[in-house]
Amino acid sequence: MIRVSIVGASGYTGRELIKILLKHPKVKIAHLTSETYKGKRISAVHKRLAGFIDKSFERLNFDKVAQDSDLIFIALPHGKSQKLVAEFLKKGKKVIDLSADYRLNDKSLYKRWYGVEHSYPRLLKKAVYGLPEIYKEEIEKSPLVANPGCYPTGIILGVAPLLAHGLGDGNSIIADAKSGVSGAGRRLDIAYHFSECHENLTAYSVGKHRHIPEIEQELSKISKEKITISFTPHLVPMDRGILSTIYLNFKRKVSLDKIWSLYRDYYRKAPFVRILPKYTFPEVRDVVETNFCEIGLTVDERTNRIIIITAIDNLVKGGSGQAVQNMNLMYGFRETEGLL
Amino acid sequence: MIRVSIVGASGYTGRELIKILLKHPKVKIAHLTSETYKGKRISAVHKRLAGFIDKSFERLNFDKVAQDSDLIFIALPHGKSQKLVAEFLKKGKKVIDLSADYRLNDKSLYKRWYGVEHSYPRLLKKAVYGLPEIYKEEIEKSPLVANPGCYPTGIILGVAPLLAHGLGDGNSIIADAKSGVSGAGRRLDIAYHFSECHENLTAYSVGKHRHIPEIEQELSKISKEKITISFTPHLVPMDRGILSTIYLNFKRKVSLDKIWSLYRDYYRKAPFVRILPKYTFPEVRDVVETNFCEIGLTVDERTNRIIIITAIDNLVKGGSGQAVQNMNLMYGFRETEGLL
Amino acid sequence: MIRVSIVGASGYTGRELIKILLKHPKVKIAHLTSETYKGKRISAVHKRLAGFIDKSFERLNFDKVAQDSDLIFIALPHGKSQKLVAEFLKKGKKVIDLSADYRLNDKSLYKRWYGVEHSYPRLLKKAVYGLPEIYKEEIEKSPLVANPGCYPTGIILGVAPLLAHGLGDGNSIIADAKSGVSGAGRRLDIAYHFSECHENLTAYSVGKHRHIPEIEQELSKISKEKITISFTPHLVPMDRGILSTIYLNFKRKVSLDKIWSLYRDYYRKAPFVRILPKYTFPEVRDVVETNFCEIGLTVDERTNRIIIITAIDNLVKGGSGQAVQNMNLMYGFRETEGLL
Amino acid sequence: MIRVSIVGASGYTGRELIKILLKHPKVKIAHLTSETYKGKRISAVHKRLAGFIDKSFERLNFDKVAQDSDLIFIALPHGKSQKLVAEFLKKGKKVIDLSADYRLNDKSLYKRWYGVEHSYPRLLKKAVYGLPEIYKEEIEKSPLVANPGCYPTGIILGVAPLLAHGLGDGNSIIADAKSGVSGAGRRLDIAYHFSECHENLTAYSVGKHRHIPEIEQELSKISKEKITISFTPHLVPMDRGILSTIYLNFKRKVSLDKIWSLYRDYYRKAPFVRILPKYTFPEVRDVVETNFCEIGLTVDERTNRIIIITAIDNLVKGGSGQAVQNMNLMYGFRETEGLL
Repeated sequence: MIRVSIVGASGYTGRELIKILLKHPKVKIAHLTSETYKGKRISAVHKRLAGFIDKSFERLNFDKVAQDSDLIFIALPHGKSQKLVAEFLKKGKKVIDLSADYRLNDKSLYKRWYGVEHSYPRLLKKAVYGLPEIYKEEIEKSPLVANPGCYPTGIILGVAPLLAHGLGDGNSIIADAKSGVSGAGRRLDIAYHFSECHENLTAYSVGKHRHIPEIEQELSKISKEKITISFTPHLVPMDRGILSTIYLNFKRKVSLDKIWSLYRDYYRKAPFVRILPKYTFPEVRDVVETNFCEIGLTVDERTNRIIIITAIDNLVKGGSGQAVQNMNLMYGFRETEGLL
Repeated sequence: MIRVSIVGASGYTGRELIKILLKHPKVKIAHLTSETYKGKRISAVHKRLAGFIDKSFERLNFDKVAQDSDLIFIALPHGKSQKLVAEFLKKGKKVIDLSADYRLNDKSLYKRWYGVEHSYPRLLKKAVYGLPEIYKEEIEKSPLVANPGCYPTGIILGVAPLLAHGLGDGNSIIADAKSGVSGAGRRLDIAYHFSECHENLTAYSVGKHRHIPEIEQELSKISKEKITISFTPHLVPMDRGILSTIYLNFKRKVSLDKIWSLYRDYYRKAPFVRILPKYTFPEVRDVVETNFCEIGLTVDERTNRIIIITAIDNLVKGGSGQAVQNMNLMYGFRETEGLL
Repeated sequence: MIRVSIVGASGYTGRELIKILLKHPKVKIAHLTSETYKGKRISAVHKRLAGFIDKSFERLNFDKVAQDSDLIFIALPHGKSQKLVAEFLKKGKKVIDLSADYRLNDKSLYKRWYGVEHSYPRLLKKAVYGLPEIYKEEIEKSPLVANPGCYPTGIILGVAPLLAHGLGDGNSIIADAKSGVSGAGRRLDIAYHFSECHENLTAYSVGKHRHIPEIEQELSKISKEKITISFTPHLVPMDRGILSTIYLNFKRKVSLDKIWSLYRDYYRKAPFVRILPKYTFPEVRDVVETNFCEIGLTVDERTNRIIIITAIDNLVKGGSGQAVQNMNLMYGFRETEGLL
Repeated sequence: MIRVSIVGASGYTGRELIKILLKHPKVKIAHLTSETYKGKRISAVHKRLAGFIDKSFERLNFDKVAQDSDLIFIALPHGKSQKLVAEFLKKGKKVIDLSADYRLNDKSLYKRWYGVEHSYPRLLKKAVYGLPEIYKEEIEKSPLVANPGCYPTGIILGVAPLLAHGLGDGNSIIADAKSGVSGAGRRLDIAYHFSECHENLTAYSVGKHRHIPEIEQELSKISKEKITISFTPHLVPMDRGILSTIYLNFKRKVSLDKIWSLYRDYYRKAPFVRILPKYTFPEVRDVVETNFCEIGLTVDERTNRIIIITAIDNLVKGGSGQAVQNMNLMYGFRETEGLL
């Protein structure tokens, strides 16, 4: 039984994390902090948790959180968790950071994309990127895990096997991703007004979304060469889920049968990745509220391209579920504990 | 004032076509046929037309329709309009065929993708592809116009200027398109049950959608070389609209400014194409219930790719609105008559 | 040809009003004002109007608007139009006020429900309630029309015939209404965030919505006795439309046939009210984007209650369409001009 | 540990029941039958259960099911479970029938509303109506529980305390209920096509829905007088959830404080009923995917009516969750086991 706290627990990510942790048999929730809602009952903010939890949000009291927790989840906006992470680590705590602050290993890259200086460049290098299907062993041993972004999770899982085997041309990757509105967070912006999103569909941050450097960093590591991709996120009138349609060219032509076997093999020990039968493709609906990533594959014979489609729940495998999966590994729990 | 009839007017396309024609100052509706609903009032089937039209669906009576109409719109499933088109033409009538039967000029291509023999190969060669932004003059003179598919409309308009100027590599085109559910038609299929589509998102017909040969045929004509593309359609939980995100490589590098000017110039006489300001992208909501096609452009500097995003209403510019635009050209009416 | 202006044209009501006026053959738009968006192009705020209008929003210049307009539509929040209305009238202009400021004839009622003093009590008494199905002649002669609220429109039209004939017990009326989210306006409030409204349903302002006094005032006038009703509005995850389910007891029992004929008769000259066949009930979808009000009727034999269900588009018959219908009457245009 | 089977497990109710049972610590699933999908993997039909269950649907083999199960859930259409229930009981099995076959105690009432003869009138009298908040003790002792309909659950829970205390006038009850589309089941009907339901809202079965006799039977028992109600169900463009707005008159006037305390008291031992603070009302979103029923109360001082609003998930508290709650009681498990 470990004691965990969440710093910044009032957003959608926080809500899902609480929901999962409440059902986790090896975890006791210590503190849930929110500066905006401090003093308010959790169930008054996350109303669907009524009946499941009886606590209130607290203002962050660093010493108290450190003292009462073995592991701290940080779900703050980028820039806000840099220092906190460092200090919890100094106290000997384990940290899973759901912000973007420790995802990029290169301090200058962080500066360029997030517009903020990073004050802990050494820690940045030590942080493990929390994609358990790829960094399982590192996660098991690290006190600091940087939980991946939602888009990167679906895209990296989609192409990793090909790149690891040197079959796909990483620089030909085009990732066209479509997300539900919860991905934008609980944010006051007229763009997310029901009457603006509903019966609408649009692309945003075309060619400049902040998840790009994160995806490229990881794909470059996997393929052992510098990779640059095209990535276009879209906003879809649904609440949850991301579907990523990924196109890439072969380095050398391989049959679909071969690729399919290779994917099955690559993920044979990954309990949350499901390779669909050939010529079938995932639907967002089938993974929502689960920690699964479904992957469908095909070879477009006419153009010699590989098309990979992946589906995840942006708030679960793309956020809180993955954080719990990481926690399970860090503590030697069963990888699926609390998630299946 | 011309007299027009619609053969097969009970689907969503038929409904939109009736709606537009009712407001068209130069048109009188003669007959509206439907084998399924013959004898039923239009307003009992298309209930939102109640108060706007007082007619009933009739069983198709070829002679009567031919006698009472100058122009016939045919909105039947593919395979069903081949012969009808030929016979109306023989009677000296003009025809706009909204089915796929006269879109492919090559009879063997039609056979391969639609699985049916084409019995009028000579007519096939003479039919004009009804994309007014490209074939305006041909449409003005032709008695037979094959109205384009919804996906092809958004995609061809999106890349035509680049290919016409030899700037984009046609064979690098990847068109990732997202459509509302009305695109599937008023069809009884559990896949279109509200509880299955809602909060869901999926790709379908990956690499084998029937709009592929149509797109390739037209892009090949424009670029004067044989073009093969990747095309992935997706089903989005909204009723109407298509957003197409199109990626292609430069043949030779050109600045965004240059490309943008070139697009403005290419479409300077096209009243329904709107080139958005640089770095802005269309939203489906802004074109729904209109005949506009909005186009947003960018150059992904990091990858040297051009990204083009287009939005149309699948039932208007992608169907009935375009048919009326074609009719306007065929009769020398103002191109926007009844549509603006 | 008359010249009209809209003061406060940047909301959803403004957008729909512009859309309708642009197609109206007897109207020329003079000024469109918005303090928030002054100087911005209309089509940059109401993007779906791009291609249909080329003007910009202006700051309100009273003298200029008065000078250039025959009729002014005011679409400001309540409290903001009181004085403006009075002054435009003083200049000899006609005014249709879409706010609540001139709907209640009784100044103390206005104060109680809106919490603001009314400074023009005499004008209040002279304003005509703009429900053309009931006050046609008064509207034709009045320079000031107070355009009804969206909920009142659907509910008053639903019970007027019964009350006018003294058949229904007005004090037994229970009106359970359900509205799309656009009814809340383009307002920044987390309650209207897509992720909060979608897949949700709730009642609000139970027993204290500001449309109550307006409904009661009008029903009391029609039935010639003081009427108090129960009214519960609900927020439904759709953009547009209101469905009102109204229950009331008989004063004396009458057959459904009788009631149905009576409704048909009462509305025989009302081009926008449609009494559905017995035992059929309206669907919001069938009236959206139209100025129609559909009414379905039944007698619940088991309980001796009359159940009336009405559907309107909250932004058209419940707002801008009705305003144009009023304008048509005020100027002797055909009542349906620009609306059918 | 008990062994349970589900007969007719391929609908939405079946899916939710499987989902809950899989997480229930005291239950082992024996057989899941479906005539339509026999032989198919559960996860191929209920795709969101992939990874959670590895079984296939079987054709119903009565002897095998009886032999391998302690309790059988029957989720067949009405008329289909009458005989099956009787035979499983004869074998000494316990049965929870989710169909309507054993809900009405009066055989002639069943005949009138369902149009079918009931062949087991004696069993009908013995079946316990499975609303645990009201019949807890009877459920604990009965081998046959008739699981309530979705609408009745929300409405009966909403008015039971008032009627039990003789405060509300049962014959003045008007229940205006709004349901998500999943309530209609996985049924092929053009009315449930996405493009027909979306952005739509309508009432159906006005005054004649089959849940009426069930509600009246139970309310009559609670109030010890014959009660007749008005009930209007509506179809709302969302997947799950029912909101019921219930109006009734006082028998004798009581303060809201008094009523509120009385509700709290009535449900003090009901773990799944939540009485909201005065003047607050439930939202469907807050109970979806839970077994809770939320109740909000107010007194409409102006009309002297009580307004009660309740929210449930139609597939959980209105179906499968309630069935599991009943099972818990029948076996002496904790009432919330597997549900919280």
